[in-house]
Amino acid sequence: MTVTIIGLGLIGGSLALSLRQHGLARHLIGVEHNPAHARRALELGLVDAIETDLATAVQQAGLVVVAVPMDALVAVLPAVLDAIGPHQVVIDVGSTKQALLAAVAGHPRRGRFVAVHPMAGTEYSGPDAAVQGLFEGKAVVLCDTGHSDPDAVQLVENLFRALPMRLLYLDAAAHDLHTAYVSHISHITSFALALTVLEKEKEEQRIFDLAGGGFQSTVRLAKSAPATWVPIFRQNRLNVLDVLDEHLHQLQHLRELLASENYDGLAEQIRQANHIQKILP
Amino acid sequence: MTVTIIGLGLIGGSLALSLRQHGLARHLIGVEHNPAHARRALELGLVDAIETDLATAVQQAGLVVVAVPMDALVAVLPAVLDAIGPHQVVIDVGSTKQALLAAVAGHPRRGRFVAVHPMAGTEYSGPDAAVQGLFEGKAVVLCDTGHSDPDAVQLVENLFRALPMRLLYLDAAAHDLHTAYVSHISHITSFALALTVLEKEKEEQRIFDLAGGGFQSTVRLAKSAPATWVPIFRQNRLNVLDVLDEHLHQLQHLRELLASENYDGLAEQIRQANHIQKILP
Repeated sequence: MTVTIIGLGLIGGSLALSLRQHGLARHLIGVEHNPAHARRALELGLVDAIETDLATAVQQAGLVVVAVPMDALVAVLPAVLDAIGPHQVVIDVGSTKQALLAAVAGHPRRGRFVAVHPMAGTEYSGPDAAVQGLFEGKAVVLCDTGHSDPDAVQLVENLFRALPMRLLYLDAAAHDLHTAYVSHISHITSFALALTVLEKEKEEQRIFDLAGGGFQSTVRLAKSAPATWVPIFRQNRLNVLDVLDEHLHQLQHLRELLASENYDGLAEQIRQANHIQKILP
Repeated sequence: MTVTIIGLGLIGGSLALSLRQHGLARHLIGVEHNPAHARRALELGLVDAIETDLATAVQQAGLVVVAVPMDALVAVLPAVLDAIGPHQVVIDVGSTKQALLAAVAGHPRRGRFVAVHPMAGTEYSGPDAAVQGLFEGKAVVLCDTGHSDPDAVQLVENLFRALPMRLLYLDAAAHDLHTAYVSHISHITSFALALTVLEKEKEEQRIFDLAGGGFQSTVRLAKSAPATWVPIFRQNRLNVLDVLDEHLHQLQHLRELLASENYDGLAEQIRQANHIQKILP
């Protein structure tokens, strides 16, 4: 199968590597609006060819993967559906789904599109961030599959099972709510933690000297690109605000317990937080 | 050299493994008030013998390591100094220093004590949490070494250099301030994040299904024990409150930018946060 990947960054590039590794793509065509990234993707062998015309790139493919940031995705996906025939399949790999699915709801080719969110990533971006095996053993969410043609869903299921990934099914609203909890809020807290430490700790050398593994792991996501994350926060704004308000409430509560020297109360909250280890061992 | 380690948890146990691995301890004696942990430390070979009487355990050692939680440490350290002679050396491995150093400030054996904080750890506790190589390549802070005898400081420096660790020197006040920034606040945010998600996400299976690497890395420290962390927050309360207030301010600012749909402002804050990658590559 020929696969066209639009957007050769972390996710698009890593998916190219995975599809090739598992023999799922015979020929890989890339579309990438950043010329430096396009050249680099060829150098790295992520794709076999770069095509500058979207319609030409799409028409050659059995499967089209749209792997651009969420703001571009809402514009590019309808254009891709405009260009495909009745037997081609299109997927996205975006982090929010409601706005995207609304944007293609009435499209005559809606059935050929399957909304996909692989729950995998790193804090890096661009073709150099592409890593072999990024998706292996991770979850992939398929959204609102009832609106996609059964053969398109089956092709996508077989493809992601082969990587191998664990398939989950959610409607778009549930997807956007749950990802606010288990992904988007982590990025907000990590950005805020980096800003806190950079603000308070003017001697940057001290951060470097002293930072242990704990700090590095909580602040890792703060390296993530604004071009990726602002559109995600924008499209999932109400869910993110809701979870963020709960997080602020929890932090305020811990602050009050410490300020009032209620150490039994603080220990009880930490014991509650420890329950996370039953879920994420 | 015979080394006595008081407290055979994550740090005491891992240090026992490191000292043995590098030939720095010929005989290791453990003191551990939890009988199950004492048995387990022997089974795991962390120490050669368990001694129940503190004075007896201390008197046999060239070096005594006190590796108990911060609240116990403030009580145990003076008792250890009471029991040593003029040529023995005592270190702690605690996460805060001002209260501890105040507790031994006037002690006749103060010079034999060197205040030490290895900047290494994991979210686990107890002897089973001990891991080989935990300290390798990490930083170790020596505090207020001017109050320790030069030969005691030299013994400690040689020991930690051999692990090998990077030696840093701070006064106790600076230590407590910097560790609030680069360690203690990370634990607070991680506990609050776990509480947020556990509160909002009643379907625990969904957390397990969906959680990617990003969430796992920001929430990892929330598995840490209250017995370790409440005493640290207590002893470093004013610094932790100060950093926590700045963190709340940064989160509120991100919240306002998102609530008011100021996406340029949000992108600018994320770009600022990205600076952390220059310091922690």
